[in-house]
Amino acid sequence: MKNAETDYPVHALIAKRWSPYVFSDRAISNEDLCSLFEAARWTMSSYNAQPWRYILGIRGQSDPLRDRIFSVLLEGNQAWAKHAPVLALGLAEHNFEHNGKPNKAAVHDLGAASAQLTLEATARGLCVHQMVGIDPDKAREEFDLPDSIEPMTGLAIGYPGKAGDTDEEYASRDDRPRERKSLQDILLLGFDFLMPR
Amino acid sequence: MKNAETDYPVHALIAKRWSPYVFSDRAISNEDLCSLFEAARWTMSSYNAQPWRYILGIRGQSDPLRDRIFSVLLEGNQAWAKHAPVLALGLAEHNFEHNGKPNKAAVHDLGAASAQLTLEATARGLCVHQMVGIDPDKAREEFDLPDSIEPMTGLAIGYPGKAGDTDEEYASRDDRPRERKSLQDILLLGFDFLMPR
Repeated sequence: MKNAETDYPVHALIAKRWSPYVFSDRAISNEDLCSLFEAARWTMSSYNAQPWRYILGIRGQSDPLRDRIFSVLLEGNQAWAKHAPVLALGLAEHNFEHNGKPNKAAVHDLGAASAQLTLEATARGLCVHQMVGIDPDKAREEFDLPDSIEPMTGLAIGYPGKAGDTDEEYASRDDRPRERKSLQDILLLGFDFLMPR
Repeated sequence: MKNAETDYPVHALIAKRWSPYVFSDRAISNEDLCSLFEAARWTMSSYNAQPWRYILGIRGQSDPLRDRIFSVLLEGNQAWAKHAPVLALGLAEHNFEHNGKPNKAAVHDLGAASAQLTLEATARGLCVHQMVGIDPDKAREEFDLPDSIEPMTGLAIGYPGKAGDTDEEYASRDDRPRERKSLQDILLLGFDFLMPR
């Protein structure tokens, strides 16, 4: 695990969260997986619409489903994600259930739910590496999705691995330093008032 | 604070997180605010593009900026958000910096960053209540935003208040039970394999 080198203190869960390329093949307990999706479930959302949807495949338990999820990942992601014991898709329901109108926060709120899922995983010693690199049309066909549901992300979930667990190319990616824009870069306005004087 | 009544155990931060309508007028320290945006900063994102942007206004420190943020909230949100000492806007940068092409994960990743910000706030005894109810065109004009940046959300940030801190209507909203869809509802496929047998 590679803790973030933060400029200001943040909670350990947030500092520890990290998206590795190398996963161990160690299985995840179903109890842990339930808690991950439970964490997504309790996310805040616009009008409490809860537009997040997931499709879940577990190695050794639902291999055909895991294979179908794997098949909609782009090749560059299949190359490293194949080792993760659990694969999922993140999908956004674009219509409100109560009136059928478009929910403009659907994708935003899926992002929030997957962040909560990821931090719950971190609390359990697990890692989540999300990918926008999926083939949404293929996913739509493979899972016969209605038009209102947009396949957005793939999620590889597992315990962090060692260099020997995967191809060298991906192990070296995990050695790269973790970098971020400065706080000033993400605060378009208001930064000057925030800094302790 | 109203802990979520979860079906499966989740980390205390996730169970405690809650979006109240009633805020105390107690000021937030700048150290705490720095840590909130630092938590957003370390979020995962597609190609590490970090498409989240914020505009921040602090009562007593940057009142004119807070007033400008307040002015782009929809009326129904102004009515309760006026009490929060800190207001922010969440914005998505839709273009990649390295090639100018559209980043299809921009809004998704803003949602993730604001979730991390919200959980950092929870760790510090603070609450965040996000609103998609803002006037994006007004925000675009007020802050002279480039076309690639989309104003998505308002964020009211503060300590939780007591019923007397605001109008009765909003206090009663905070008494409503917290409800969510079942895990089965959000797992389109894979639920049957997940449940402990």
